[in-house]
Amino acid sequence: MPKQITLRSPLDMHLHLRDGDMLKLAAPLTAESFSGAVIMPNLVPPVDNLDRLLEYKQRIVDAVGQHQFDPYMALFFRQYSEQELAIAKEHMIGIKLYPAGATTNSEAGVKAIDAVEPTFKMMEEMGIPLMVHGETHGFVMDREKEFLESYDYLAKKFPKLNITMEHITTADAVEMLDKHENLRATVTLQHLIITLDDVAGGMLDPHLFCKPIAKRPEDREALLQAALEAHPRLMFGSDSAPHPIEKKECCGCAAGVFTAPIAIARLAQLFDKHDKLDNLQVFISDNAQKLYGIKPTEKLITVTNERFQVPPAYVGHNQHVVPMHANEELEWSISQIG
Amino acid sequence: MPKQITLRSPLDMHLHLRDGDMLKLAAPLTAESFSGAVIMPNLVPPVDNLDRLLEYKQRIVDAVGQHQFDPYMALFFRQYSEQELAIAKEHMIGIKLYPAGATTNSEAGVKAIDAVEPTFKMMEEMGIPLMVHGETHGFVMDREKEFLESYDYLAKKFPKLNITMEHITTADAVEMLDKHENLRATVTLQHLIITLDDVAGGMLDPHLFCKPIAKRPEDREALLQAALEAHPRLMFGSDSAPHPIEKKECCGCAAGVFTAPIAIARLAQLFDKHDKLDNLQVFISDNAQKLYGIKPTEKLITVTNERFQVPPAYVGHNQHVVPMHANEELEWSISQIG
Repeated sequence: MPKQITLRSPLDMHLHLRDGDMLKLAAPLTAESFSGAVIMPNLVPPVDNLDRLLEYKQRIVDAVGQHQFDPYMALFFRQYSEQELAIAKEHMIGIKLYPAGATTNSEAGVKAIDAVEPTFKMMEEMGIPLMVHGETHGFVMDREKEFLESYDYLAKKFPKLNITMEHITTADAVEMLDKHENLRATVTLQHLIITLDDVAGGMLDPHLFCKPIAKRPEDREALLQAALEAHPRLMFGSDSAPHPIEKKECCGCAAGVFTAPIAIARLAQLFDKHDKLDNLQVFISDNAQKLYGIKPTEKLITVTNERFQVPPAYVGHNQHVVPMHANEELEWSISQIG
Repeated sequence: MPKQITLRSPLDMHLHLRDGDMLKLAAPLTAESFSGAVIMPNLVPPVDNLDRLLEYKQRIVDAVGQHQFDPYMALFFRQYSEQELAIAKEHMIGIKLYPAGATTNSEAGVKAIDAVEPTFKMMEEMGIPLMVHGETHGFVMDREKEFLESYDYLAKKFPKLNITMEHITTADAVEMLDKHENLRATVTLQHLIITLDDVAGGMLDPHLFCKPIAKRPEDREALLQAALEAHPRLMFGSDSAPHPIEKKECCGCAAGVFTAPIAIARLAQLFDKHDKLDNLQVFISDNAQKLYGIKPTEKLITVTNERFQVPPAYVGHNQHVVPMHANEELEWSISQIG
């Protein structure tokens, strides 16, 4: 039976676009079907001042081409002065904090949360959201769980600071989300679908390796339920992370799953499978609009239960990126962009 | 300070030698420093009759060349007749059971344990040991733990059947080992050293990906303590598994760590680090001799705390295999083989 849904202004609240040739390849693949996205600042060097942020934004706008698309820029967290924050505020959606070394290009990140509280305080007072890659340096399956006490601490200590728990992967994180009103979260496509089994249970699959790593079945189930029920403080954030194929299919593969071009269709398939298609609009756009107070470019994306063959790779100048579900058939596809 | 230990007749109680060109490369790398090894039968087709077993043994003897080396042949578990077992018994050390699909070339394995009990019963009566790849098809971190009840069941139901829990990876398995006198276990080098962190905590490392997958820090600690204390029913079994480099550094990498050429030196380094060098002889040979009632070829291997650069690969005709610790320096090395 033909089924379809029209989504208004889908938003990707956590996106890596990289720079240079990769940016030119990746940006249109998101901009075609999303109204806007929160752009991660973990370049080398990091996007940690207004000049870099505005220059990067311009390169994104150039790369996007003819698509209507809002890049919501995030600044890389460091200790900022009040003046720096004041002039940057209107140009950004928030500040992204990386524990030093937790993921790709995060070496310049924060070493101790409590040492940077003056910046949190200013952000709270100025209404600047904090976005956090919430992992410790502990055992890989425990890193997010161990970080939760930091969320708990920050949410209590700065009750007016809006804190986004980025790309949550555990049932414990869903519980923490419910504990404080000023916590919100993003969740990726892959963490709604896969577990560690898919990464390392059969053959080792580098294209499903990401940070935080996919966890246990009961974790996936808790995340999926929260998404399907359109939890009011949970937003879609793909964490789509293009790496050149030679950094993935090699010895010592980089972390990140490239989902941008297939995310909307795959989410429609997932929500439909669980008879929750009506909740996808809230998950993929409305929650983010409310929580961040943003009004994205109007874009109507119609998704239909018509099969779509995912290509083996997306190829640009000097770039070759393998998407999630490469060479597989999705049951849903984007049928119209208006 | 110069330190050394001379090991008498080291035994590798769980070894993959493969076949063809790979066998020719891998066999001498074990035979040089080990007196003997239990040879896994998961070829394609499996080594599941006496003819195949004797032919494979001859190919191993040929591949070993001038080294003194005892290949202890294992038969691939299936339902055997009493007559088949009777004629095969003197040519083998035991029968290896794979749950169907649990690891490399195990598609012909057992689908339900209770359906094959007549063969267990005959093995028990004839004094033929059972060796088991003990994993369910559950979530990758739970597979061994979930299988433990099968060990418990078999050990109770067949109290005179000697059952080896192959390549144990969890603290729970160490506990199970202590529960029944007719259970014994092998443990690999890598599971004494690494956790899932080393496989997937930083970059994804295909050369440390194996089945069972490396588990949590507390699991490694329990295994290490049992080995260092020379637990009387724990034996060294490398599970060294050579895969051609193109099956490892690729998309969808095969499971197995190649440790044979470095195992003895690395174990000496590990036991020395914990001031337990005196227990290495029991772990690497004496326990196996007692538990299996074998008298291996006499071989004296002297290991010294002199540095050794592990090569990037071992290369044979059409074969290129990357060992554990490739390009790293070990603190100990084999200084004399007598």
